Formats: sequence, structure tokens, C-alpha cells
Amino acid sequence: MGAVETVRLTNPMVGSVTNAVSVNFVANAQLAIGGSAAMVYLPEECELLGSIGEAFYINVGTLLPVHEQSLPLAAKVLHEAGKCWVLDPVGVGLGTLRSSLLLRFKEYKPSVVRGNASEVIALAGLWGLVGDAQSNVRGVDSTDTVLAAKSAAVALARWTGGAVAVSGENDLVTDGEMVAFSRGGSHFMEKITGAGCSLGGVVAVYVAASSPFIAALTATNVYNLAGQRAELRANGTGSFQAQFLDELYRASAADIASNPFEIEEA
Amino acid sequence: MGAVETVRLTNPMVGSVTNAVSVNFVANAQLAIGGSAAMVYLPEECELLGSIGEAFYINVGTLLPVHEQSLPLAAKVLHEAGKCWVLDPVGVGLGTLRSSLLLRFKEYKPSVVRGNASEVIALAGLWGLVGDAQSNVRGVDSTDTVLAAKSAAVALARWTGGAVAVSGENDLVTDGEMVAFSRGGSHFMEKITGAGCSLGGVVAVYVAASSPFIAALTATNVYNLAGQRAELRANGTGSFQAQFLDELYRASAADIASNPFEIEEA
Amino acid sequence: MGAVETVRLTNPMVGSVTNAVSVNFVANAQLAIGGSAAMVYLPEECELLGSIGEAFYINVGTLLPVHEQSLPLAAKVLHEAGKCWVLDPVGVGLGTLRSSLLLRFKEYKPSVVRGNASEVIALAGLWGLVGDAQSNVRGVDSTDTVLAAKSAAVALARWTGGAVAVSGENDLVTDGEMVAFSRGGSHFMEKITGAGCSLGGVVAVYVAASSPFIAALTATNVYNLAGQRAELRANGTGSFQAQFLDELYRASAADIASNPFEIEEA
Repeated sequence: MGAVETVRLTNPMVGSVTNAVSVNFVANAQLAIGGSAAMVYLPEECELLGSIGEAFYINVGTLLPVHEQSLPLAAKVLHEAGKCWVLDPVGVGLGTLRSSLLLRFKEYKPSVVRGNASEVIALAGLWGLVGDAQSNVRGVDSTDTVLAAKSAAVALARWTGGAVAVSGENDLVTDGEMVAFSRGGSHFMEKITGAGCSLGGVVAVYVAASSPFIAALTATNVYNLAGQRAELRANGTGSFQAQFLDELYRASAADIASNPFEIEEA
Repeated sequence: MGAVETVRLTNPMVGSVTNAVSVNFVANAQLAIGGSAAMVYLPEECELLGSIGEAFYINVGTLLPVHEQSLPLAAKVLHEAGKCWVLDPVGVGLGTLRSSLLLRFKEYKPSVVRGNASEVIALAGLWGLVGDAQSNVRGVDSTDTVLAAKSAAVALARWTGGAVAVSGENDLVTDGEMVAFSRGGSHFMEKITGAGCSLGGVVAVYVAASSPFIAALTATNVYNLAGQRAELRANGTGSFQAQFLDELYRASAADIASNPFEIEEA
Repeated sequence: MGAVETVRLTNPMVGSVTNAVSVNFVANAQLAIGGSAAMVYLPEECELLGSIGEAFYINVGTLLPVHEQSLPLAAKVLHEAGKCWVLDPVGVGLGTLRSSLLLRFKEYKPSVVRGNASEVIALAGLWGLVGDAQSNVRGVDSTDTVLAAKSAAVALARWTGGAVAVSGENDLVTDGEMVAFSRGGSHFMEKITGAGCSLGGVVAVYVAASSPFIAALTATNVYNLAGQRAELRANGTGSFQAQFLDELYRASAADIASNPFEIEEA
């Protein structure tokens, strides 16, 4: 997987608008795999970074009033410039601003959508891509299985022409044609905040150096590998976080390629 | 103490408006003990989470303009819905917005007030519950002893009908009738940011599963236990944070019940 | 170096306006060396903390609309009160608000400017202190060497009458007359977020207890020492962060004084 080495060699700069809870963890994960992280809030800075950065990450976790302007502008700039960007639709369904922002993103076609099963089902429903979607988002948690989100993920990927990554017990990545399942990870990943958010940020770094599908699958595989390795050395959720960043930093391209996954047709 | 097991079994969702400095630590502490954390800023999202969440946490640490609207709305919704909520009056006395927000909370009666000694004395003074209160808040630090805050804490608890937890060398928890003193903790807890804030967040998770007094005492006991255990394995303030979250995650109900505390009449 | 012990004895309260990404790490670094940290956003709170705090730290990393008012006010209050303050011009050149804020700071003369080489060169250029400055800021990263920033650093220090600290492979600290070079640190410091930001915060704590030049040099030396020691125990960027805070906490005045540095005339 060339993305891993390319990122370490070229240190791509990736702008992000992400949530206050896990912004530090997102940046540290992006740095650990070899990227350069720049987080912004203001419309003009989103526009600038969207233009000069090599990819972008939008995570709607903790919305502030400023995001009403900055997020649609960022997405528009990225779409018009043909830049890759990753969307994490955290908490889709909570509040009218979140819904209206996520609705506007439909036309700007994120290169990768990264979410848990309930979020992916809900986003596909919001975008009218699946007729009978019924998701069960509960705050920021998922109450659906990854397999239940498969058709929604495929529909989203076909709409955007990019890829979708669904996080759960076995992670799913699809580009609308192929569906990959990646195994590994750790039960600790649900007990820390930011595991999913930082995965989105890491996808955004890899997508600066590869196709959306390869970026999403590479990021998912390195997360499953690092999670599994970190669990072996962790005594709880605090040490797990440190070990997890260590393993992200240490994982070689060969290590990542060896993480078990299967691919089938969509 | 049933709260510990109930929380691990039911994973209650607790909304929070908390400060930028320790928001990650608060969420990780809430997850470590078995809760589900959702942090918000916007008025409409406070209202929604106040309504669908099982309890709420308000920490006024780093105020933004948006909080002028969102915090009174959240408190009002919670009070009117009869939902439990926890208030951490960080930095009470610093600035007019903070004072006016804290003053408005009086009528919405937080189920638990969590603060250091100076903050608890200052809040009781602001609410006119103690005639001759003289607190010594210094930024976010306390310069008063826990015992000096006892009458203020009792007065606050009698006003709200809930409980008050005062953090310090020996922590005090009262419901206005009984006063419990919990021992343990670590000198490292004053040397990291967010020990107090995250305690407030953890009280908010336990209060979804028990009375305000039991929630505050359970949270205080698990903090004292985890602090003491983490100190044994820590080489400084950085490793202490990781060990502390580990111990929060690992503590069993029996462990927590064994943490030494005494109860007397108020 | 008296600053180290004075800070541990007197626990100076230092206000900060700093970025969302590393605010937790900044506060924890300030606490680890013995300071008291208070982070704010609102204009009135900047004014208050600027007035009652013993020093102040301004880091323009992640600007929000509120900063348009609060940052110039804070700088003005500090300057007029003769309080020491530290400026970290993160991302100078990115956007018009950032440029206009940084331009206004010229007249309020920060006691210490802390930045990477490209940021220091760009700030000196923005302030018209070096005729032919050409910096290469790339997002929040530097693409210039520390030595290339020497004349810009000296010019800035002569303008402010304070000191300038340039972070890089060998760090440079100058008061416009002398130039000190401090060695040590770790390659991990570029792979975590907030190493530079938290150094600025630590300078602000030391400047409450010593001259700008001694504060900047002390902070730079303790960072180089702690970085070197932490690297020996770290397996990656996650454990490095925890070890680094541990070493900041553990470093004695004698340890810090023993970190290798040379001084020459500017």
C-alpha cells in the first residue's frame, strides 16, 4: 500500500474543521502517521486551507455558530477545486443546523464518508439515497450493526463516486463496487473518545496520497492493527490511548498490509 | 453502591457543556466508568440533549459568546423536565457573564454542585444563602480549606434539594442533612488540569442511575481510589493521567465501596 | 536559574488565550512546572486576567470570531499595565484576521515572541523590521532553519525590548544583544501537536518570575532536557507525550541548568 510510505515521505498538509472533544487526538493521529495537521474555524481560513492544503477533513461533532458559514464554504471550495475531502457526520439527526449542513454537503460530494453504522444509514436517508432507511443514532453512538449499513454505504459511495468507511466490530469500506471487511481493533476503542473522529482525520491524510477507497481501507487497516497491538500493552483506557498512538506511529507499510481483510463485490 | 454497576450495564447518555481545556479528559472519564458522552455548544442542541439525555453536566470554565444563550436554556429545560444536572461553577467571580449565568442557575436548582472550597463558598454567597461568605477564588484555584466550605455546601444543598461535592484534601459531600468525608486521592490531582471538571462529568453519569447524594459520593470515592492507585504507578503528571483513567476504568463496585469515608450529621 | 524554584514556590497564575488543539497540553505543561493556568476567550475575561494575572500568553492558533475583540484588548491591557506577555504567532500569514491581529500586537510589544523559524521571519517581515525577509511558513510548520531566522529574531527582540525564542533543531534565544543556542530535545517533538505552543505557555509562567531572556532560555532548556529524557522511555508519540510531561514535572533547577547551551553576541 503505497499510501503509507508516500505520506511518511511527503508529509502532506491537511486542513481540518473538527470537534473540540477530540481535536488534539485527531491532530496527534495525523502526525503519527506522517501528515501535517492544521485546524481552523473561520470561513476565510477554511477557504485558504481548502485551497492550499492537499486534502481536508470535516467533522461536525461540536458545532459552533461560526460553522454555519465556514463548513458549506469549505466544502464548496474543495468540491470546485477537485480536492479530496473526508466527511464525518457525527451525531447526524441532532439539531437543525447539523441537518442543514449535512444536507448541503450532498452536492459537494465528499471523497470519503466515515461514520458508525447508524450515522451512515442516517446520512444516506437524509440524502434520499435509500428509500426505507431507518437508523438508530443515539447521541454519538451507533445502535446498528455494520452489516445493516452495507446498502446505505454502497449507495453513498455510488452517489459521491468516492468511498465510505463504516466503523464497528468488523469495519466495512466500499467504493460502491467492492466491499472490504477489515478485522482487528480493540474493545477499548469504544471506551475512549475520538477513535472514530481520528480515523476520519487519518483517512484525510492518506487520501492526499491515494484513491478514496485505498485511503479509507489503509486507514481502517492501520486502526485495526494499532488497536489490536495497543490492547496487548494497555491496562485500561488511559494507557490504551498512548499505546494506540505509539502503534500508529510504529506501524510499517508491511505491517498494515498484513492486517486481515476480505474483499467482495457490492 | 448500585450506581457503579447500573452505569456499566445501561451506558447512560449524558450531555455536557464543558470547557475547552479539559473537554477530552471529561469525556474519557465519563466513558471509562461506563457512560456515553455528548458535548454541545448550540442552544438548540443543549435543549435537545437536555431533553433526550439521561442527565446533564454544565461546567462554565471557558465561556464563549454562544454560552450566554445556551446555558440558561439548558438549565431551564432540565429543571422543567425534572432531569438531574450537575453544575461546576469554575472561576465563579471572574467576569460579569459568568456571574450572571451562575446567578440565573439558582432558580433551576442543579441536582449536584461540584467545586473546590472557594468556588462553593463564592456560589453560596452569590446566591445569598450565607450571610457573611468570604471566598478566596484565585483564577480556577481554591485558597480555602474544605472544612471552611462546609456551611456553604450545606446551605447550597438545602436550597437545591440535591447534593454538593467539595473537592480538596479530604473531599466533602453533603445533601444538606448528612455530610460525608472521603479520603484518598493524590497530590498529582492538583498538578493536572481537569481533575475537578472530569469529576463533575462523572457525577453527572452516576446521577443518571442514583440519587444526587449517592452519585456525588460514588464519584468522589472512585476519584479518591483511582487517584491513590494511579499515583503508585506514575512517574509524574503525564503518566498519572493515563494511569488515572486506567484505574477509573478498572475500579469495581466493591473497590469503590471500600474507599474510606465517614458520614456525620450536617 | 532562580525562575525554576521561584515558580514552584509561588505558583504564579498565568492567563492564556490559546488554540483549541493543544490547550490541554499547554495547561498541563504550565501546571507541571509549577504554574497555575487559566484559559479564557471573552474580552472582559481577557481584560480581567490580564490585570490580575502575573503574566499572560497569547497563541493565535485557532482563531474564532470572538478573538477579533479579545486579543487586541488583552494585549493593550497587558502593555499598559506593564505586565509581561508571550506571543506565539502560529500560522502567521494565514488569513486577514490573523495578519491584522499580529500587526496590531506590534505596538503592544510582547515580552517574548516564541515561534518556529518561518514564523519568526514572517512576523519580523510583517512588522517591517527586516527589509528583505522571505519566510516559508507552510500551515503551522517551518521550512526555514533556525539560523536563517537569527537576524529576524534579533530585530524583533530589539523592537520589543524583550526576548525571542526560535524553536528548531537547535533552539535560539535572544534579547537583541546576546544569542543563546540550546541543544537537546527529541525528534518526537515534531510528531506531536502542541510542543511549540506549550513551550510558549511555559515561557509565560517563567516570565512571571524572571526577565524575558532568562524565562525564554529556561523554558527552552527544560524543553530540550525533558524531550531528550522522554525519548529514552518512549515507544512512540503517544507514550512520549506522557513521558515528556513527567520529565517537565521532575526536572530540578540543577538538571535544567546542566542542559547544554552556548551564548554569543548578537
